[in-house]
This record gives sequence, structure tokens and C-alpha cells, in this order.
Amino acid sequence: MMERLLITGAAGGVGAMMRNRLGHLAQHVRLSDIADFEAEGETAEVIQCDLGDADGVLDLVAGCDGIVHLGGVSVEDRFDRIRWANIDGVYNLYEAARRHDVKRILFASSNHVVGYHPQTSRLDDRAPLRPDGLYGVSKCFGEAIASLYHDKFGIETALVRIGSCFPEPKDHRMLSTWLSIDDLVSLVECVFRVPRLGCPVIYGASNNSMTWWDNAHAGYLGWTPQSNAEDYRQEVERSAQIPQPDDPAAVYQGGKFTTDPIYE
Amino acid sequence: MMERLLITGAAGGVGAMMRNRLGHLAQHVRLSDIADFEAEGETAEVIQCDLGDADGVLDLVAGCDGIVHLGGVSVEDRFDRIRWANIDGVYNLYEAARRHDVKRILFASSNHVVGYHPQTSRLDDRAPLRPDGLYGVSKCFGEAIASLYHDKFGIETALVRIGSCFPEPKDHRMLSTWLSIDDLVSLVECVFRVPRLGCPVIYGASNNSMTWWDNAHAGYLGWTPQSNAEDYRQEVERSAQIPQPDDPAAVYQGGKFTTDPIYE
Amino acid sequence: MMERLLITGAAGGVGAMMRNRLGHLAQHVRLSDIADFEAEGETAEVIQCDLGDADGVLDLVAGCDGIVHLGGVSVEDRFDRIRWANIDGVYNLYEAARRHDVKRILFASSNHVVGYHPQTSRLDDRAPLRPDGLYGVSKCFGEAIASLYHDKFGIETALVRIGSCFPEPKDHRMLSTWLSIDDLVSLVECVFRVPRLGCPVIYGASNNSMTWWDNAHAGYLGWTPQSNAEDYRQEVERSAQIPQPDDPAAVYQGGKFTTDPIYE
Amino acid sequence: MMERLLITGAAGGVGAMMRNRLGHLAQHVRLSDIADFEAEGETAEVIQCDLGDADGVLDLVAGCDGIVHLGGVSVEDRFDRIRWANIDGVYNLYEAARRHDVKRILFASSNHVVGYHPQTSRLDDRAPLRPDGLYGVSKCFGEAIASLYHDKFGIETALVRIGSCFPEPKDHRMLSTWLSIDDLVSLVECVFRVPRLGCPVIYGASNNSMTWWDNAHAGYLGWTPQSNAEDYRQEVERSAQIPQPDDPAAVYQGGKFTTDPIYE
Amino acid sequence: MMERLLITGAAGGVGAMMRNRLGHLAQHVRLSDIADFEAEGETAEVIQCDLGDADGVLDLVAGCDGIVHLGGVSVEDRFDRIRWANIDGVYNLYEAARRHDVKRILFASSNHVVGYHPQTSRLDDRAPLRPDGLYGVSKCFGEAIASLYHDKFGIETALVRIGSCFPEPKDHRMLSTWLSIDDLVSLVECVFRVPRLGCPVIYGASNNSMTWWDNAHAGYLGWTPQSNAEDYRQEVERSAQIPQPDDPAAVYQGGKFTTDPIYE
Amino acid sequence: MMERLLITGAAGGVGAMMRNRLGHLAQHVRLSDIADFEAEGETAEVIQCDLGDADGVLDLVAGCDGIVHLGGVSVEDRFDRIRWANIDGVYNLYEAARRHDVKRILFASSNHVVGYHPQTSRLDDRAPLRPDGLYGVSKCFGEAIASLYHDKFGIETALVRIGSCFPEPKDHRMLSTWLSIDDLVSLVECVFRVPRLGCPVIYGASNNSMTWWDNAHAGYLGWTPQSNAEDYRQEVERSAQIPQPDDPAAVYQGGKFTTDPIYE
Repeated sequence: MMERLLITGAAGGVGAMMRNRLGHLAQHVRLSDIADFEAEGETAEVIQCDLGDADGVLDLVAGCDGIVHLGGVSVEDRFDRIRWANIDGVYNLYEAARRHDVKRILFASSNHVVGYHPQTSRLDDRAPLRPDGLYGVSKCFGEAIASLYHDKFGIETALVRIGSCFPEPKDHRMLSTWLSIDDLVSLVECVFRVPRLGCPVIYGASNNSMTWWDNAHAGYLGWTPQSNAEDYRQEVERSAQIPQPDDPAAVYQGGKFTTDPIYE
Repeated sequence: MMERLLITGAAGGVGAMMRNRLGHLAQHVRLSDIADFEAEGETAEVIQCDLGDADGVLDLVAGCDGIVHLGGVSVEDRFDRIRWANIDGVYNLYEAARRHDVKRILFASSNHVVGYHPQTSRLDDRAPLRPDGLYGVSKCFGEAIASLYHDKFGIETALVRIGSCFPEPKDHRMLSTWLSIDDLVSLVECVFRVPRLGCPVIYGASNNSMTWWDNAHAGYLGWTPQSNAEDYRQEVERSAQIPQPDDPAAVYQGGKFTTDPIYE
Repeated sequence: MMERLLITGAAGGVGAMMRNRLGHLAQHVRLSDIADFEAEGETAEVIQCDLGDADGVLDLVAGCDGIVHLGGVSVEDRFDRIRWANIDGVYNLYEAARRHDVKRILFASSNHVVGYHPQTSRLDDRAPLRPDGLYGVSKCFGEAIASLYHDKFGIETALVRIGSCFPEPKDHRMLSTWLSIDDLVSLVECVFRVPRLGCPVIYGASNNSMTWWDNAHAGYLGWTPQSNAEDYRQEVERSAQIPQPDDPAAVYQGGKFTTDPIYE
Repeated sequence: MMERLLITGAAGGVGAMMRNRLGHLAQHVRLSDIADFEAEGETAEVIQCDLGDADGVLDLVAGCDGIVHLGGVSVEDRFDRIRWANIDGVYNLYEAARRHDVKRILFASSNHVVGYHPQTSRLDDRAPLRPDGLYGVSKCFGEAIASLYHDKFGIETALVRIGSCFPEPKDHRMLSTWLSIDDLVSLVECVFRVPRLGCPVIYGASNNSMTWWDNAHAGYLGWTPQSNAEDYRQEVERSAQIPQPDDPAAVYQGGKFTTDPIYE
Repeated sequence: MMERLLITGAAGGVGAMMRNRLGHLAQHVRLSDIADFEAEGETAEVIQCDLGDADGVLDLVAGCDGIVHLGGVSVEDRFDRIRWANIDGVYNLYEAARRHDVKRILFASSNHVVGYHPQTSRLDDRAPLRPDGLYGVSKCFGEAIASLYHDKFGIETALVRIGSCFPEPKDHRMLSTWLSIDDLVSLVECVFRVPRLGCPVIYGASNNSMTWWDNAHAGYLGWTPQSNAEDYRQEVERSAQIPQPDDPAAVYQGGKFTTDPIYE
Repeated sequence: MMERLLITGAAGGVGAMMRNRLGHLAQHVRLSDIADFEAEGETAEVIQCDLGDADGVLDLVAGCDGIVHLGGVSVEDRFDRIRWANIDGVYNLYEAARRHDVKRILFASSNHVVGYHPQTSRLDDRAPLRPDGLYGVSKCFGEAIASLYHDKFGIETALVRIGSCFPEPKDHRMLSTWLSIDDLVSLVECVFRVPRLGCPVIYGASNNSMTWWDNAHAGYLGWTPQSNAEDYRQEVERSAQIPQPDDPAAVYQGGKFTTDPIYE
């Protein structure tokens, strides 16, 4: 059991669903976000912090022995914004972890680091990076930083390429990419429980019938996701139009992100 | 939902079991065979057609937007017969599909395109072709035609290398190769439901405990076969002799087909 | 059904748990060990035999048509002891099998032939050998002998790299390596039931959530292990200390065996 | 040294360049083509033969112990023509070889069996077939027939996927695909000299600096092509326009063949 | 032939050796560096530019149709410096290329993106990224940007992971990593000459006898490096100490870079 | 430069050709064999030693810092003889190396560890072991011992799977397997020169045109063999009968060794 687990991005979409579910992993949970928010319950510490602020991040990480890093920009955006939160921010976080001797991090990477692979391809951890936007590029940067801090300083990171983490799958693409909160929670448990983690790539998707991703290489984690987006097919087909075969939402693993321009 | 689905070979072994199970996929189902037969129910159109007759096939395909191609010779036979139905016939079918703008086809290929691989090998979609007879060779031809029409004209085909599609497994080899009708039906559903199909090889076998084939590359289809030939082991062992280790039925994936001569 | 199945090492840890579970595979079961022991039931023949004694082994194998070879040294030890039982012994056994025309053997190899691979790696049957001690080296020798007798004389062997075969998993490493007796029994059944066995490598682990090993290549055996070490996690965590990330028990697949010296 | 080597298509482009270069491989050389032509020298027998004529082919093959099969249609054409020469024709040839116990064939397959692979991909013998026209499909058929006759009857075939066999490379694509006559001659020598041939795929290209194809798997043949299309770059660049990046001649390995329609 | 080729980093080590060698590739050569320098000859335009200055880079790229991007920080340094030149700088460059419709770029990436791979490993373009410092991480970022601009905007980039580009190899590691200027020049020629480039990874090393890297996947470029560091072995052994087996200079492909701290 | 290099088997076929060619690698060369022999020149120490004699080997190795281990049985033989020299002998040698802190060994393994692979296959260091006799099995044992002593004690070994090391190739198989003395000498130089060796498998064959083996993985050694058996083809074809396609000499990489019985 950890002494103190830090969760960044705790007020974001995924963070809000997760932040009350990890209390059993540490004696203390520290929640942080750039936004102001109020934590439920009594045990959590809340610290507001901008990830691009190096000193702030250094303070934030002090006293922690594990980090679930969900913070930063999570959609396509202007480069300066992405660079601030996802490039400077990730560098700041790993530097803080190094200085404070944090030994294990779950880094919320994204399927958008491989978004230009076709949906008809099956990817494992050796798949070439093919980011589908500046957001995806920033996550490639984050994975590279994590790899460096693992090889050079022994900080272990789970590089979780999150698919679509929502309460329910909302469109056809998510029938393949959906990651239920329950399955993400169990993944966090596995990541902080395994004696030796290393720096594995893990595709963050539930046990969906339709699947593009292969996590066999990470079998040592013992993660066995239980949810299946297929159970929601009827709702999805009722509310969302099936994309045409040449719609980017049907062609690329990154879906509509591939159609984003460079924002200025 | 399709407007009209054509099923060829509808009076054959697989066709007869399937033809009443696919009505939910299209508003109309057109059934065809070289043999005369009567369709059950009222919705199905029946058109008798010899696949080697180009004009007949052109008429047959008119008005359809999907094809389940089960027709043709399905055992080892004289070359002229196989060529007529499986080579000329497949060319005629794809030409008709191109002219009438049919966009998706399930082509019943066969495990006999890889029949000379040993049973101790595991095959995926990259396995070299090793046909075990002229029938298998004709299916190699069909797969090549489908690949061409996909790359050149955008017609998508599921190349389903059917194992042994019978009501129940009947001998020891079928403990590995059996494909239940239920599982074939669910495969057809997946093939016509996925937004983008491409031109994948799919091994047509149920979820058998004994398995030679790996469909992981086609995970994007969401096909999860449910039947298991193992459930029929007792019946199989009661009625069928276990082959010796050097019996072709135990050596090669194609089984006894490897012992067929060239018929004259 | 075999005429007579020989089980060596029948008084050892695994042998004692197995010897009464295989009676349905043969009309007679012959049990052997270097130690004196008494067999339960009536059908079993007991023959005491030192595997390093070539003449004794030749007599032992006479009249058998299958062998489950569990005998020999099963921990790290002095070279002379390992050589006697596991090198001379295995040579003696295969020579006896060749002379008496035994056609199928299950050879209890060990995960310690690949013990220096990291726990974060996934291995299949193509993984390079990396033995973690002289015991592991002797099992590499045994696998090589089995391969030779298969290629040259047609004797088929299942090379079962047993993980940790105990009634229950006893420490954290066994959450990955545990093989339940039930699953080993079902593996023996599969090995002697399949018409053609060949000479496959099979990793002997149950259906554990945490897994380092991939048996997909041996899918033709139809082995579907049912036990899961995860069901024993609470007991394990209660009684055994979780190893640190740099503890050999957490670093290497072979665990503590990597810390054994050369015994003199 | 063979008794009698048959060369089909001896009046075609490649055949005309080859037919006088193989005399040292056999005591007699038999030349055949659908066209009438006159052979140079005295040793060659000339037999006019239409490959689609089964009886004619049976006579043609009588008395031969090796075949270099260059005959048939070698460009995109109407299906009926391709089927006659390249499908019926190849079947006729292998049947004749089987009946007359010919044990080794060099089959002129074509790069057009993989013509839809991009020029930026490197292919070896495991590359999926992606024919770029009906001609390419007919060569897929021929490779399948050869594989069948190898597995079933022991007839060995070298499946030579010829690139562009001309006296000199004539356009930019040929800087990668060119096969000099000298190198083809040396390949024929290797194919008929190696004690055991099997049924390998060999990409028929010279030792060009620009290369898409990998023949490492066929290293046992000892073929070391010596020509290099790069030596002709200046002439090529002088006479042929460099294709644009999106010109099919620059995109696909099959080049302009991908733009051929289905001829009617 | 290009209209105008831009070379960034033209006053740096590699740039200074290259800048007079590429005149035949374009009618005009534009040279740029953050440092002031004087160009030899008359044809070159010199424009001083800081890559982190977006507007300056936009002006710099105007009118060019090809870029050899050598600029930026090329050793381990403080993060803010690396980020400015290699992250902001690369983004600025690709944005300028997109706006000015530059279609082809040679990006000087570095072997330090894979620097933590052991020297006993052989890498091809599928090797996982294992950067050995912040400099290496910034090159990972650059490769990701290039991949994005290729997939999304069709800008082609050669990702050249330069080994050690010096007039001569200077230490033992360079016997493997050396890239002669001549070979780099010929690589630039190949990159701007091939009709279709795509976005390949190319390891930038000469034809050294000692080699860790495999460029077979990029055979379509026709690059055949001619220099061999082995020719300089005597000089190297005379002047440089052979590293011990556990010296990072002998262990890791990135050599001493793996020992750099995070500079503050 | 080493202080003292030990060469075992110095009076054997390979040893006799090598023992005077390695003097530049060490200040002293110690030659050993079970047979009595006289060394040429003055610098070499000769010590007669039976490898199965542990104490003798311990003395033999004292004072050495490198070993070229050519000693032992090098053909198929009775098990007791092979075990004595090649199993006990290798164990004795590595134990002596460990005790005397010898850090690098070249172990003369053999192609006969993979002798049952067909000649039409291409092998790299991941090829499964398929020994063709007890001799080959003993070399598998030796490779396993070397791997253990590398992982556990840091002793580096080059596992050189020698093909056919003779002054000239003598039969057709040797056109593929021949290793010239010159090339073996240069390999020894590379093995003792590279700063970090590890424990690589290296196929010991010259730069023969006909080749079954791929040493690309060991490119870091910088070994570039220069001889080519093809240069001796005429002599070979004059003196040796070309084997038939189904002759083991043409079927298996191990050639005639596959036909050896178990000697008694």
C-alpha cells in the first residue's frame, strides 16, 4: 500500500469518475487539477496546480510515492496550449518525480498516438507511432519522456493508451475503443500491485468484442478487463449513425481526430 | 440494413442451413443455386442460375447490395468442372458485382487453400497458401480475384476459409475444424455490419478447444464464435475411429483431401 | 487407450499428486521412483529404479507404450547428481523407449530453461533458452534429446515446461507460474489423446490472470486449463511478503533459482 | 545435366533472349511457342503448341526432364484469353509434367501477383498476394497449382516473380524491377543445379541499388545477380519522365498495371 | 531538380561539411543558422534565423521546395534550450512547410532516439524508441511531428537517425556509428530523387563492418553507402582507449549520452 | 591484447590449422589437447589434458584470460564418450573459467545443433534447436552452459556453430557450409576485440554464395568473411557426386549426420 497517491487531472472527465475509486491503494490520496473543484469525502487532499508551472508541480509531487497522471489537454488544440500542459507539464512532472524519488507512474497516454493506423489493423506494443494530431504528438513526447526516466533513473511507468473512457460507449467507434471506469480502476490496481512494472505500453480498452489492440505482451500485469461495449450496441445504434466505409470515423483508429486541422 | 442480399449455393449443404437465417440482414433475400429447389417462407426470391453462365450471373446480381457466395463445387473434382463453377463462376460473380456496384461480399473460401500445412502448425492470415487439391487451388484463385476487386474497385470481401460446416462434428479432424451454423450466421452478421470491412482472411471455425487457426488479426469484426466441438467429443469418439499419427487425416490440416488424386 | 503407461518420479511432489489420477489413460499404470514407496489402489505396478542405471531403465520401460517422465532431480544441485539423474537418466530413458518402441512421452521440462528472461517478457515456443542453473541446463539437454529422438526415430514428446506445480500457489511469483494438478492431469490427457503430437514446447501453467507464457502454438492439443492462481491471491498476500522490484523473485521468470550458486 | 529441357514461350520477349543461352543445361533443348518461329543453331527442337490444348501439351512435355515455363499471356488482357493460356495452360502443363514424371520446373510468375503493395514496402516470400489485374490473378493461380503439385506429387518449382526482363531498364520503375537476361540465365542455372529445390518464391530482379524485394529466404540457391539498373540511370532519366509521387507508376509495385481496366 | 533547397543548421558541424555539396540538387540553395556565418561561393543565399521564432521560420521557408533540416540543439542540454530549438523549432518548421506547400524534408533525427538499446542488438525501423536524454526525446518529438504531417498533409520526410557524422571516426563506438559526409550527401540525393518517399526511418551510418542497424526496409531509396569505418581502425585504436565491457560507451548504442544527467 | 589465450583441441583438425594463427591476440598462447603433439614455434605452451578431468582442466585454465574451445569429440560417437568430453568436459571448462575469472570464451558449437532443419530453410539465432545426433545434443548442452555462465557470472561466450572447417570444400553440402580457416581466424579476432560480446550465436560459414544462415544479428562484431566456397565448385563437382533430391545430404542441413545410428 502506498503512502500517498497523486491523481492529476482529477477534475477532468476521467479524473472525476476515478478520484473516489482509488482510496484503497494508498493511505492518502492527493487530487490536483488546473481547475478548482471540491473533493468528496474527507481523506483526499486537493491541490490546485497548473502542470506547466514547474515549481508548483515540484511542490505537488512532494510526499507522494505513486502518480496517476490524467492531467493536461486531452483533445486537439493550439500548439502553445498543448505544449504548455502536455510537454512542459510532463517534463515538470517527471522531473518532480525524479527529485522526490517517486518510483511508479501511470501515464494516461492515448490511442491518438497511433490514430492513423487503419481500423482493420491489429496493433501491439511494437506498432509504429502514427499520431493523428498535435495532441497525439504530445502524448508521443510523454511516452518518450517516460521511457527515458525509466532507462536512466529507474522510474517505472505504465503507458496507458486510453481508448474512450466514458460511462458508456457513445458511437460506433467506441464499440472498439471503449474503456469502462471499472476496467480502468482495475488496471490502476494491477499497475501499482505488480512487483516489477517496467515501462509497458498498455492499450486502455475493455474486453470489447470488436477489438484492434493486443495487450498480450503485458500479461504479467494480470489485468483482465470485464466490460464489453457490445452490451451497449443497441443503444449506440439507436442514437448514433453508422459511419460510411470511407468516413474517417470508420477508416482510422483515431476516428474524427484525423480530420482536425492545425488550430491557430 | 441491406436492400437485397444474394445467397448463392442456397440449395447446397451450408446454403440450406443458412438460407432462412439471414432474413434480418436485408429487406429482400435472393436465393440461387444451379439446382432447382423451393424456398421456405414468402420473402425469398429464388433464381436458378449456373455460375459459369456470365449473362445469367449478371442478371442474378442485379439489384443486390450484398452477396454471400456459397455456390460452386465444394469437393475435389475434375478440373473442367471446378474451372467452370469456381474459376469462371467467381470471375462472373465479381464482374457482375462490379457492374452493378455491389460493395460487399462474403466469399466462402476453404481451409483447403492451406490444407498441406501440418495440424501441429498454427496459421494466421499470413500463412503461405498450400492448397491440397484442385478445389483448393480454385479457392486460391477466388481469393486472388477478391483481392484484385478490392484493391482496384473498392469491393470489400470477407475471405472466409470455412473449416467443416455441418450440424455436428463428425470425425476427429472436425474437433478442430468444425464451424457451427450459429457461428457462421453470426459471422455473416459481423461481416455486413462492420462499417469498413476491407478484404480480410477469416478462418471459419467455431470456438473449438482444439484449434489450428488464429483470427486475432480480424478482431475488428467483433466475431466471437460460441460453439465448441469439444462438446461433441463423446459422440465423435463413439462413431469415428481415431486416426493413426501418420494418417493424412491426422497429419495435414486438409485431412483426406490430401489423398485425392487428380480426377480425370 | 494405452496398454501400459509408465510414470517416473512417482514418489516425488508432482508424482505423488498425479499417480492416482491417470488410471483412465491405460489398462496398466507402472509407477517408478528412486525412492521406495507404496502405491495406493491395486492396479498400479511399482518398480523402484535409479534413472542413471541404464539396464534398470531398459527393464523399467519394457512393455510400456507411453511415459510420463517426472523423475530426476528437480532443484538446483551439484553437477554430478544432476548429470546422473537428468542427463544420463534422460539418455537412458529415451534409449529404452527407442528399443522398446515406445512412441509417446510427456517430458517434465521446467520453466528454469528460460529462467533468466525477465518477468516483463512474454515467451512462446521460440524464446531463446536462458537456463538459470545447472538444473535448467539439464532440462535443456533433455529437450534436445527429445527433439533428436523425434526427428530421427519418430518418438513424439510433449516438452512441458512446468511452472510451479503445487496444491496451491505459495508466493507472489506463483501467481504467474502456478500449475494446478487438475490442469496438469488434463494436459496429460490431451497429450496422449491427440492423434499426432509432434514435439511441442508447452508452458505448464494454469489459466492464471498474470501470465508470462503463450501456448497458442500448441492450440491443436485442445488443452484449456481451468485453474487461476488469482483465486488464491488473498492467501498468498497474507502469508508471503511481496518482493521488491529489484528482488530476483520479481525480476526473473526463474525467480530465486537465479541466485543459486554452483554447488560443490 | 538434364536429358531434355523444354522452354515454353520461346518466341516471346524473354524467351527469344533466353533460348540460346541454356544449351549447357541439357543435352537437348526443346523450344515451343504458340507462334511460329525459327530456332537458331542446330541442337534445338522447335514444337509449335497452344498451351490451352491439353493433348498438345502432353505431347510437348514427353521426353523432357525440366521445364522453363515462360509461355502464356504476359500482359493484362481479356479474361477468356488469360484463362485459356494461363489457367488452362498451366493446368495442362503440370498435368503433363506429372504424367511424364518431370521433376523440376521454373515457372515465370510475375511481380504483378503483388502489384498493389506500395513501392515503399519491402516484400519477402511471406508477403500477401495482391494481384494488380487478371494477369496477376492468373499468376496467383499458377503459383497455387505449382504448390499443389509440389506437396502432392513432389514436382519442384521455382516460382520466379519476374520484375522487368528487358535488355535495359526503360523507365524509373525499372530501376527497381529490372532483371537482366544474364541474371535470369544464372538463376535458371541455379534452379536446375541445386540438389533440392522445393517450391520457393524468388523475386526476379537484378542486384539493383533500388530494391523492394528480399530473396534472403532463397539463399540456398546460391543465386547472386550481378547487374544493377543503377548503371542505366542516366539513359533512363534522359528518355523517361520521372513520375510524380502520386502517379501509380510511383505508388505501386505493379506500376501502370494497376490502372488497367477489366478488358471486355 | 528543385527550385530552392533550404539547409538549416548550415553553420553547424554537419552543415558546414554539407552546405557546398548539395548545389546540384536545386537551382538555389538557401543556408540558414542561428549563428552568423559566411557562405562560400556565390549561389547560396544566407539567412540567419532562430528556429524557435515562428515568424522568422515562416519567412525562411518561403519559396523553398525542399528542406534538409540539420538545425537545432545537437547534444544533451537544459530542457528549455532543447524545447526552444528542437520542439518549438520543429513545429515551426513543419507549420511553415505546410503553409508554403513544401513537399519533402530530410529531418536529421538521431541514433539517440534509440540510445538505450544495447550494442549487441540489431535495430530496424520497428525498434521501440528508447531515447537516452532530453535531446533524444526531442528527436522523438520531431519524428512524431513528421509522421503527423505526412499522414495528415502529405508532406514526406526522411527520418534520418544520424549516427556520428564526422570527417573520420574518432573512437571505438564510431566504428559502428560513423557516417561519412560522402555517404550523407548520397543519402540526401536519394531522398530528393526517389519519386515517392513516404516517411521512412533511415539509420544514418556508413557501410561499416561493425553495424547495429538495418536499413533493408528502405531499400527502395537505392542508398548504398560506400565508406567503412573499419578503414580507420588503426588510427582509432592508436588514439582512443578501448572501452571496458561495462563502460556505457560499450554497453549502449547511445554511448556516453546515457551518462548525461538532467542539466539544470 | 590478452595476457594468455588458451586453445583446446589444438591437435585436432581445426586446432592444427588455427594454433599458429592466433599469436597476435595474446602475449602467450597455451595449446592443449588430449593427444600428445608438438607445437611449432617457441612462444606456445603445450599442456596435455583430458577435458573430462576436472582437476586437470582447472590447472589448464589457470593464468588464462581467454579461451578458444575447440576440444572434445567432434563427430557422432557413443554416448559415454560424448558425455565425458563434451558434457563433463564443457562443465569442467566453464567451472575452471569461473574460478579463474576468465571473462571471454569462443565455444566451437556446431551446425549439428540445428541439423534437422531442411536445407531450404534460412536460420538465424532464433531458430529452434534440432540436433541431428548425440554429438549435436552435446553441443546444445554446451550452448546452455555458456548461456548460464553468461547470465549468472558474466562470462561472455561466442557460440560459433561451425559449418565445415576444412582447407577446401569437399562435397556439395560444403558449398553452403564451408568455413575457411582465414575466416575462422578473423572471427576469433572479432570475438576477442569487440568491447562487449554478450553471448551471441554465430553461424560459422564463409561468405558462400549458397547460404542457409543469417548472421545479421551479430553485425556488431564486424565479422566480414571473405572466402566463398563457390570458387571451388569445379573441383567439388569433379570429385563428388551430386546428391539426389531425397538424399539426406541434400535434404537436411546436418547432411549425413542425420543417418548416423545411436552407436553402442
